[in-house]
Order: sequence, then structure tokens, then C-alpha cells
Amino acid sequence: MATFKVSSGLWVFAGTQDRYATEGYGPQLSPEEAIERASKVEDLEGIEIHYPTTVNEKNLSSVKQKLDENNLEVTSINLDLWGSKKWKDGSLTSSEEDTRKEAVEIGKKAIKTAKELDCENIGIWPGQDGFDYPFQADYKELWEREIEGIKKIAKFDENMNIGIEYKPKEPRNYQLISDVGKALLLVKEIDLKNVGAVLDFGHALNSGETPGESVYLLSRANKLFNIHINDNYRDWDDDMVVGSVNIRETLEFLYYLDKVNYDGYIGLDQYPYREDPVEAAELSVKNIQTLTNILEEIDKEELESAQHEQDALRAMRNILSILGG
Amino acid sequence: MATFKVSSGLWVFAGTQDRYATEGYGPQLSPEEAIERASKVEDLEGIEIHYPTTVNEKNLSSVKQKLDENNLEVTSINLDLWGSKKWKDGSLTSSEEDTRKEAVEIGKKAIKTAKELDCENIGIWPGQDGFDYPFQADYKELWEREIEGIKKIAKFDENMNIGIEYKPKEPRNYQLISDVGKALLLVKEIDLKNVGAVLDFGHALNSGETPGESVYLLSRANKLFNIHINDNYRDWDDDMVVGSVNIRETLEFLYYLDKVNYDGYIGLDQYPYREDPVEAAELSVKNIQTLTNILEEIDKEELESAQHEQDALRAMRNILSILGG
Amino acid sequence: MATFKVSSGLWVFAGTQDRYATEGYGPQLSPEEAIERASKVEDLEGIEIHYPTTVNEKNLSSVKQKLDENNLEVTSINLDLWGSKKWKDGSLTSSEEDTRKEAVEIGKKAIKTAKELDCENIGIWPGQDGFDYPFQADYKELWEREIEGIKKIAKFDENMNIGIEYKPKEPRNYQLISDVGKALLLVKEIDLKNVGAVLDFGHALNSGETPGESVYLLSRANKLFNIHINDNYRDWDDDMVVGSVNIRETLEFLYYLDKVNYDGYIGLDQYPYREDPVEAAELSVKNIQTLTNILEEIDKEELESAQHEQDALRAMRNILSILGG
Amino acid sequence: MATFKVSSGLWVFAGTQDRYATEGYGPQLSPEEAIERASKVEDLEGIEIHYPTTVNEKNLSSVKQKLDENNLEVTSINLDLWGSKKWKDGSLTSSEEDTRKEAVEIGKKAIKTAKELDCENIGIWPGQDGFDYPFQADYKELWEREIEGIKKIAKFDENMNIGIEYKPKEPRNYQLISDVGKALLLVKEIDLKNVGAVLDFGHALNSGETPGESVYLLSRANKLFNIHINDNYRDWDDDMVVGSVNIRETLEFLYYLDKVNYDGYIGLDQYPYREDPVEAAELSVKNIQTLTNILEEIDKEELESAQHEQDALRAMRNILSILGG
Repeated sequence: MATFKVSSGLWVFAGTQDRYATEGYGPQLSPEEAIERASKVEDLEGIEIHYPTTVNEKNLSSVKQKLDENNLEVTSINLDLWGSKKWKDGSLTSSEEDTRKEAVEIGKKAIKTAKELDCENIGIWPGQDGFDYPFQADYKELWEREIEGIKKIAKFDENMNIGIEYKPKEPRNYQLISDVGKALLLVKEIDLKNVGAVLDFGHALNSGETPGESVYLLSRANKLFNIHINDNYRDWDDDMVVGSVNIRETLEFLYYLDKVNYDGYIGLDQYPYREDPVEAAELSVKNIQTLTNILEEIDKEELESAQHEQDALRAMRNILSILGG
Repeated sequence: MATFKVSSGLWVFAGTQDRYATEGYGPQLSPEEAIERASKVEDLEGIEIHYPTTVNEKNLSSVKQKLDENNLEVTSINLDLWGSKKWKDGSLTSSEEDTRKEAVEIGKKAIKTAKELDCENIGIWPGQDGFDYPFQADYKELWEREIEGIKKIAKFDENMNIGIEYKPKEPRNYQLISDVGKALLLVKEIDLKNVGAVLDFGHALNSGETPGESVYLLSRANKLFNIHINDNYRDWDDDMVVGSVNIRETLEFLYYLDKVNYDGYIGLDQYPYREDPVEAAELSVKNIQTLTNILEEIDKEELESAQHEQDALRAMRNILSILGG
Repeated sequence: MATFKVSSGLWVFAGTQDRYATEGYGPQLSPEEAIERASKVEDLEGIEIHYPTTVNEKNLSSVKQKLDENNLEVTSINLDLWGSKKWKDGSLTSSEEDTRKEAVEIGKKAIKTAKELDCENIGIWPGQDGFDYPFQADYKELWEREIEGIKKIAKFDENMNIGIEYKPKEPRNYQLISDVGKALLLVKEIDLKNVGAVLDFGHALNSGETPGESVYLLSRANKLFNIHINDNYRDWDDDMVVGSVNIRETLEFLYYLDKVNYDGYIGLDQYPYREDPVEAAELSVKNIQTLTNILEEIDKEELESAQHEQDALRAMRNILSILGG
Repeated sequence: MATFKVSSGLWVFAGTQDRYATEGYGPQLSPEEAIERASKVEDLEGIEIHYPTTVNEKNLSSVKQKLDENNLEVTSINLDLWGSKKWKDGSLTSSEEDTRKEAVEIGKKAIKTAKELDCENIGIWPGQDGFDYPFQADYKELWEREIEGIKKIAKFDENMNIGIEYKPKEPRNYQLISDVGKALLLVKEIDLKNVGAVLDFGHALNSGETPGESVYLLSRANKLFNIHINDNYRDWDDDMVVGSVNIRETLEFLYYLDKVNYDGYIGLDQYPYREDPVEAAELSVKNIQTLTNILEEIDKEELESAQHEQDALRAMRNILSILGG
């Protein structure tokens, strides 16, 4: 059983808000302050950062310095194509050509910034690409623009990994790239070596998937580029502490990551609305370690034999025995 | 068939944001500007306003003047017990005694403000009262504090109607007063003539209810104090235009409101993230009118006879014939 | 921490089918054969049985003998008011007076049978009482008939406990008594000492509840009469092995049962479609024991202190440490 | 706007049961009796039948005669790979080689039978292929067997269309081919001209899809082979009368079917548990016609222009005006 390297979205530490508490549940921090906070989390080795709203050409050197001081690697630069009102009707799928161009431009600049930070991964979660009402969308236009926009960004530098993150809902009532099947279809249609998918454990649950199966499906196509982890109550992206709700599926998720030899980072993508972010991240890291240790002790041969026979009880007993049962 | 008087939350017109688009999808307006906008909506007769974040002692006279100029009645003053970080762990159920006191104080002051505005209804939606994680809550403490807090506010003026609004989720992962059953239990346990419930069509759907049945249940106990209306895809409070998704259940909802002789306002509680708020509200008003007209034409005797026999197809044919079928 | 006595529905052992596999996934057993099977489950002390389709006046003595031979107590006699086509439009809420009468009659006879079996509990799950389509139901008729029917059964013998079991869906698209709030409202309106509620862990999840909170709410009203336990993926009554999905909420459920001093049986209500029923029941019993042991080790004072402060992370760390973290 | 030809599953007329009402809600009919019933439905032109449990070599001539007498075309022969206990752990994905072989054999014989009935479509809904518990499945084995099995059937006669139907849940807690994305991935990986997908409106809703978009996605890949239609409350396959819940999405579904020039049958796949099947089917046909007429009157240019600008309100107003608004 591998030990997973853990990274975290810098946003985890920067302050939380929602449509009700618009002033935020706690202080909103600068990138440098957020890095300072992140550095307090034991065993956290990497950071994902948004471009251009968190890191950009202006603060690049100061952000880089702060990261270096704290021995934090940048594991992904993620495009912020959802935080400004200019994206309200979509970014890469906007009906405005200028908006689409701007989104692509951000992608290209993010690649440059990633290189400056020795980072090999770009994350694209096109959060505002989708629709809200029945009859609102011309699906053909949306899908064709999404594909075209991602292609343009990806071709700008075919040595940079571009990971597309899917999610079914929020902030749009329906997001276009909503589940693992659609993400993989899109990636296969784009058909570029450097375009793959980012799998978020919680988004997979929201889409009704078994996250362990989604690991397998993306890995089968060699398209599992990055991992986000958190937890929720299935029907919404609650972005809770890892393992706080779904212990069994988190275990299976880690089991399958190991099985497919995933060797990238596992990135915390939680949103501690009311919790101390450092403590929340620490608990997630600790839970990942505890669950990894539990998996370490499983009799894998016995488990695989039970799975081969699709014997749920035998498979479960095997796991349970580790939990003290 | 009654014609329903339509009111609207002032927030519908004041600007929208979410946890991603923290700067907002459109401009954030002052109360007076928002009233100006609201006044453009044809057939809108009333307004609900939040205290103290939208109306308060300081701007009371200017808000009142603006409302008067535009012939808009204040149909409910609703407590904002969720927008500030001081409520992050609850308002009436906070573990801090001072916070609970402050929440009750706001309730009392809101009652005074309501009187100044000739308004007979206070709405309490304790949005931050609830919990997020398994094992986080001592349910006894939460329920007892909720009951105690509402009682204190209600006893301050037993001529003011206090309507409690339920909702299952958001902003807490679990809100305490989550569905019609719990709301009614709470109201019955409080047992004050001036304490009842506010029924939000969308929240009822989120709780897995048939909103028409919830009308009946609250009305049966004489506790249907106010109505909020909007629409959604069932699993989340999307706050969409009325009738934009669930035409059938909206029809049934209006049918039951008429049947129980509800004579208050129907208050729009939508959140037009990306739409023009005036147009969105106008479409909702228009849809309410269209659906009311459709109900007007139903053969009620035939419908009741079908319902008496629990004959779904006969009941539906009766409705369908009105839709041109 | 109490050790819970475990019972099981006899149906767990009698064979499973669904609308597709209408011949069943395994053999359909006679009551006596099913008891034989049940007796193989270590630490299972009680049995719940349906009247009149499983036990009735004809097979009473042979069933009783089989139970006695195997030292199995009857912990509840449950009315089967859903298995025959005569109940298809409802039993206690049927629009046919004769059908309603027959349902009440079954209730009375079940009470007599329960006495013969030294059983003090009757379970009523009115599975066919509800509706399927918008506009199908006259909610007033349904609620009044439900209340009236239960009253008639309960008054037949006020020394017999009558527990009403709620569930949101299946077999009706909407069941009338759908959640803990409505169950409690109904029970309070009936207002008889011997009428309370049966709480099914899985049904509570299906209704969007936190099962531990539902324990508290029923207990607060002294109406927690019986417990059913199983597990599921929240959106449907999958009736899986205890603890197979939601370990955290099962832990919290057992914690609250202990906290409110529940001293009745915990009844397995699982439906092992494709699994060996004896093994599936054994694994559930074992999981209950394992989770009870885990709870045994919790520092309760520390947990209650964390809950008092609504500190989710502190509460969770406390639990996690037991799981080896 | 095209007029759609309507077909129906023969099972709609043959009797309904579920895991509670195991004797059925009404009489169970023979295939010939069911055809007799189906023939009563005005404007119904075709029938889908299951092989081998409904039609098979033994009753082929009598079934054919009955269909001919009633002028009913066979629009699809669907494999019953879920109704017998031999499929309980899967058919094409079973861990038993013999079981997999038998499933393929049934596919081949079904093709022969289809030819005898002048039918050009085979439907495969592998209802028992999936898993129930975390850790139960080796996803690699399941996916590879599924692909291999379908290939074997499809290659048996490359002139016969093989349509794969997806569904997220029931009878397994998780079905393997669960949504439009996975169905399309599978079909593309199989890469045979005669293998495509069957789109069931209700299953698409269950998977969180907007059915109109699923029409587009399958059509974009030239893989939209057959359509099933019904309605539900989103979270479960309630198989209700067409248009009885989701009018808007049914309208959009028909709109997109017309837009992509779908020229096959629309097959009713409803399950009238408690309703008269002939009346339920008739109401569905009537609703399809009513909704088609409504679409007829839409100003398509205006709608497309609104969609091009992603203007939800303009698109909706356009639709609403047809509904009398």
C-alpha cells in the first residue's frame, strides 16, 4: 500500500463565505497569509492555487517566495473562470466571443505561471459553463465551445497537463461536464495526450458514482491526472473533512488509487465554513493516514477473491475485521 | 377560485452572490434602489424586508417613504439571523448566551419596526441553527434553545404574528427546523396564538414533501401564516422562477391554498442569480396568474370526486384538459 | 454503554423478490423454516412477525412451538396491510369503508395473537397509505382516516403498545406518514398512552433525517416504542447490512439510543436480496457489537463538552481516535 | 414538428408487482392477453417484447398472429436478463462463465426471433449487472465482461441494431451502465456500427441528466437507437404516465427529438402499479400528442435566438405563451 502525498487547495485556508454570509464566516486572507496558515498543517506537502485571482503576474514572486520558505510544492494551477461576474453566463461556453477568448487567454497565462512555479498541472473546472432552466440551452453550442476552448488552451503547451474537473451542480443548476462519463467522453473527443480529468471524491458522490469505480474508469483510459478529496452527504458538495461521513467509500477510493498505481498528489478540496481551516485540514490528513493504515492491514488476496466472486459479505467482513470487528 | 395577492422579498431585487461569485453576479443595491426596482413589477403589491440588515432604525423613514411612494405594502419583516459571522454557530441556538440574547433582541426590535411599517407579520428563518457533522450536536440543547428563543420573541407582542420558516439544508448541512412536521411540532409545543409557520414551496420540495399537502397540514392546525413561492429541481433550494420546473405541483399548491381559504399574500422568494430580477419577478407573477386561470376552469366537483376515489388518472385528465389536452 | 438486545424481522430469512425477479432471488420459506434459519444467528434473541400473512390463527401453535424450541422471543407483531391487492389504494385510508374495516379488524386480531405469543408490541407500517400522482389525493380524507383507524386499533387494548413506522416512499410514491415530524404529530394528535412510533434507521436517512436526532425527538415525547436497523445509500430503502455504508451515523444512532436509555430491542430490518440471510444477519449483529464496543471507549465527558460548544472537529477527533486514528 | 410514432412495452399491460405486493396489484396476463389489452390503446402502433420470458420459440407463432391481427408492429425485442434467479449476481458480467455464455446465447436467439417478427431492434438492459456494497466489485472485471458480452451478441448479426439501455439504480444498488456518459463510452469502445443506446426519459432524470441534453449527446454520436418514455419524481424510476410530473422537461425532450430528426418510435415504458394499464397508456399517448401540439406552435426562431444568448427568461416566456400564459 502506497503512502499518498497530500496537497491542498490554498482556498481551504483563505476564508469562506456563501450566499447568506456574504461578509464571510471568518477573515478573508491574502495568498501569502493563507500559505502561512497552510504551512502549519503537518504532512502537507503541496498547494493548488487559482490563477489569476490568487496568484498572478503581479504577486508571483512574493507567492513563490512564501511557498519556498515553507517547502510547499505547487501541485496544480487552477483557472478561476467562475469568480467574476463576467463569467456569469459561462466562460469557455459563453455566447460572447470576447468572453471565450478571455477565458482561453487566462488558460495560456496560467500555463506560463505554472512553469514559473515548476508546476506541471493545470486544473480547469468550468464552473459557470452549464445552464439553469429547461429550454435555456442549445446543447450543441455549449459542447462544441467547451471542446474548442479546452483544445486551444491545451495546444498552447502540450507538455503541460490539463485536468478537467467535473461536477453535476453548483454554481449552475446543471453544469455541462457533470460526471465521470461525460468528462471522459470530452477528454477522448479532444484526444490530446496532455488533456485528462481531475477526479473530486465529493463530486463523484454528487453524481451518484462510486468514487472507487470512477478511479478505475479514468485510470483505464490513462486519464486520471489529479485527485481532489473531501466528503459530503451525497446530494450536495458540502466539502467536509475527509472521512467524516463516508468512511467505507473513502477506504475503497484509496484502495483503488493504490490499485491503479496513482502516484500523484491527493489534494484537499474542503471548505471549512465554520471550522478552523488548519485544524480541518489536519484532521483530513490524519484521516487519510488512518484509513491508509487500515488498508495496509487488509488481506488483499482474500479481498480480491471475494470480489472475483462478487461476494459482498465476504469482502465486507474482511474490511470490518480491520476496524476492530 | 381566489386571486392571490402577490408580494416579494426585497432581496429578490438587491443583487445575488454565491460562494464562488463573491463579488456578486450583478450590482448590489441599496434598499431604496431595490424598492425602486421592485416597483417596476406589474401586479406586485407587497414587499418583505429583512431586519436589521436591510431596514433598521436608521433608514426606516427613508425606506417607508420609498414604499409609500410606490404603493407597496410591507407584508413581512424577516429577521436576518444568518448574514453576519456572529451567527456562524447558530443564533437562537448558539452555545453563547450573549448571542442568543442578541438574537432575541433583534426579534423584539423587528416587531417595533414592523409596527412602524403597519406590518403584522414577522418571519423567522433561523438559517444558522442546525449542525454540519455527525456527533456535532446535542439535539436536546438545540431544540430547547430554539423553542425558548422563539417564545421570548413571540411573547414580546402577542398581537404580532410570528411565522417560522422551515428548510432542510443550506447554509447548515442540516437545519434544525427542517420540514413541515418538525415546524408544526415546534409551533404546537410553543403553543402561542401568534406563533405559526411560513411555508416555502421550494423548501417543501427539498424536504420531499408535496407542497399542496403541506398547505393542508399547516392549515389544519390554523398555523399557515405566510407563503413563499419559487421553484427548483427538488434536491436544492434553487429559488427559480415560479412554475419554471414543477408546473403540476405548483398548480396543486395554488389549488390547496384556495381550498383552505388562504387569504394572505403569496411572497416571491426567488434568487435570480443571472437573470434580470424585474423580469424574473414579472414572469413569476404572470405564471401565478396563468396557473390560477387554469385552475379557474377546472371542474372542481369532478376533481373532488376523483380524489375521493383516489383515482389518479381521472384527476389528471381533468387537469390536462385545461392545458389544451 | 448498554448492550443492546437484538431482534430480527422474520422476513429477513424468508426469501426476497422485487418487481423484476418476481420468482425471487432465493427460495421462499415457510414461517417455521424461516425461524429455523433465524435460530442460526448468534446473539439473536427476538423475532418480529407479520400478521396475518406469516403468523395467524391457523399456524399459531406450530409457530409458537418453533420459536420456543429456539428460545426466540416475539418482540413485535406487525400488521401486513400492504401485501395483498386489496390494499392497493390504501388500507386504513382506503376510500372503501369495507377495506378500512378489514384493516382495523386485522389490527384487533393481531393484538389477540400478540398476547398469545407474550408479545407486547404491535407494529403498524401503513405501506399502501399515501398517493402517487399530483392532484390524486384529498389530504384531509387521508389524514383523518389514518388517525381514526389507528385509534380504533389502539383502543381495542390499551395495554398493547402500538408503534407506527414512518417511511417517505415505496411502495407508494409518497407515503402519508413520511417522516419523524409527521409521525410524532400523528401520535400526539391520537393522544393515547399506548400509541407511539417505530424508528427505522434507514427510513430516517431516506427522509433526510439524522437518525440520532430522530431518536432524541421521539424519546423527548416518550414515544420511541421500537427500533428497526439496516443501512442504505440515503435515497432509497436499500435495507442493507447494518454499518455497511454509514458507519458514523450508525455510531451516533447507537450513542443516542444509549443516551435516552432505550431499553427495547433493536430489530434487524434488512432485505438480503442476493446475500445469504443468515450470514447477512450475523454480520449486522457483529457490526452492532463492534460499534457498541467502539462507543464504550469514547470519552463521553469530552464528547459532551465538544457538543456543548458545537465543535465538530473536537467531537470527531474524539470518535476518530477510537477507530485507530 | 414531427408527429412521433408511439410504441409500448408489452409489460405495461401484463400486470404489476413489487417486493411488497408479491401476488401483484392486478391480474398477471399471458402475452396474448396483454396484446389484446394493448390493442385497445388508440394511436398505439408498436410493441416491445421481452425474450425469452414473454415471447420465445414456443409461443412465437401465436404471439405473431395476435400482433398481426391487431396491426401492431414489433419495434424492439428486449433481452430479459434480470427476471430469473440465475441472473442474481449479473448476466453478462456474472463471475460464472456458464452464466455469461447463457446470456450471450439468449441474445443470439433473440436476434433470430426478432427477424421472425420483422423487428430490427434488440434492447439490452443488463439490469442485474452492477453491485450493491462498497468493496464488492472488481470494476475492471465487470466492465470488461460487459463489453465482451455485448460485442459477442452484436457480432452475431451486424444488421440487427443493438441498443443498450442505461439506468443508475434498481434492481442493483448501483448498475454498471448508469448514465448517458458511461453508455456512450461503452458504445464507442465497442465500436460496432450496430451498437447504440436506448434512452429512457425517466432513467435520464434518475441520473441527474436533462433528458433533452441526453438526446443531443447520443444523437451527436449517431447512437440514439431507441426511446423509452415515462415520468417520475427524479430520485427513483417511478415509471409514471408521460407528462404527469415534469411537463417542462418532457416538452424539451420532444423538442430535441424533433431537432435531431429522430424518426424511430417513442416507446412507453411505464409501470401502472395501481392504475388501469390501458387508461394509463392512453393518457400517455394523449399527453405526448398534446405536448407535441404545444411545440408545434412555438416560434422556433425566437426560441433558438434566446438559446443562442442563453437567455432563460426569454426562452421560457416563449414556451409559456403556448400554455395560455
